[in-house]
Amino acid sequence: MPLIHVSLFEGRSIEQKREYAKVVTAETARILKCAPEAVDIIFEDVKKSDWASAGKLASDT
Amino acid sequence: MPLIHVSLFEGRSIEQKREYAKVVTAETARILKCAPEAVDIIFEDVKKSDWASAGKLASDT
Amino acid sequence: MPLIHVSLFEGRSIEQKREYAKVVTAETARILKCAPEAVDIIFEDVKKSDWASAGKLASDT
Amino acid sequence: MPLIHVSLFEGRSIEQKREYAKVVTAETARILKCAPEAVDIIFEDVKKSDWASAGKLASDT
Amino acid sequence: MPLIHVSLFEGRSIEQKREYAKVVTAETARILKCAPEAVDIIFEDVKKSDWASAGKLASDT
Amino acid sequence: MPLIHVSLFEGRSIEQKREYAKVVTAETARILKCAPEAVDIIFEDVKKSDWASAGKLASDT
Repeated sequence: MPLIHVSLFEGRSIEQKREYAKVVTAETARILKCAPEAVDIIFEDVKKSDWASAGKLASDT
Repeated sequence: MPLIHVSLFEGRSIEQKREYAKVVTAETARILKCAPEAVDIIFEDVKKSDWASAGKLASDT
Repeated sequence: MPLIHVSLFEGRSIEQKREYAKVVTAETARILKCAPEAVDIIFEDVKKSDWASAGKLASDT
Repeated sequence: MPLIHVSLFEGRSIEQKREYAKVVTAETARILKCAPEAVDIIFEDVKKSDWASAGKLASDT
Repeated sequence: MPLIHVSLFEGRSIEQKREYAKVVTAETARILKCAPEAVDIIFEDVKKSDWASAGKLASDT
Repeated sequence: MPLIHVSLFEGRSIEQKREYAKVVTAETARILKCAPEAVDIIFEDVKKSDWASAGKLASDT
């Protein structure tokens, strides 16, 4: 607790995910007042052809 | 807002997802009374070996 | 299969959800080529103070 | 109903998922008092580089 | 890891959830070969008017 | 895009969620290189009796 699930377009590097995990865990612990050890983050890469906004696939825009 | 997350067996074509995004966004805007621009749809393809109903993997049935 | 999870601001009526379930199930069956009996839809009402876009809670905008 | 979504590190075999689906469906039906036919389980394999605990990617530990 | 998210109709007792957590954690650890300490389960109660199957809200059936 | 879903124990204040949305949106935009306008965050409050770790409900510990 807490659990953070991040859906994002595929293509981010492991370095970006590593920095994101470090920074967001620290901010989560600070603002929500929990131990950093209690924070889990799961990244879910989504293809542009699997994400639609305003009725259009992102791969079509 | 709203966010629509669709879990489905893998194998649908991009054409099907494109039509689905268009039609479901329009119906969502019409029925839930929101702007089409506010509708996000995320598709998540699931392998038949990752979905079980009634205790059996779909890949076994 | 498929499973459709809809996150939306609270305040929609049961009549809207009823129509939405009927229409979206029919379109899902038609476009994704599955039986209507196989379609599940779960609605998750979200408070405006629990949804942020562009860094602001919707309840603050 | 119920729907069970299991996020786990990739690498489990189909045999493990098959046994898991069978056993957890039976226990779900027994404890929550529903028909086994009503139980759906979806597995989501997660790469170690997509799961962070305590601010570190699991692939780094 | 693993994370188990259970969507179920509201109305189950805390005693049922307590037994479910105990039993499913033990089976998860046994079958997926992980430590019981690593297993998280989140229950999400869903109202019958928020779950549709085959195009009908469960509250209408 | 991206979408961030945060499951947390109930009891955090709106002020905490407001600060969290602001800070995490800014860090998301900075690290993942996207527009802040593209970031959505949904908070899901979970009761302690609906979250189990290591086989025990958090409300029992």
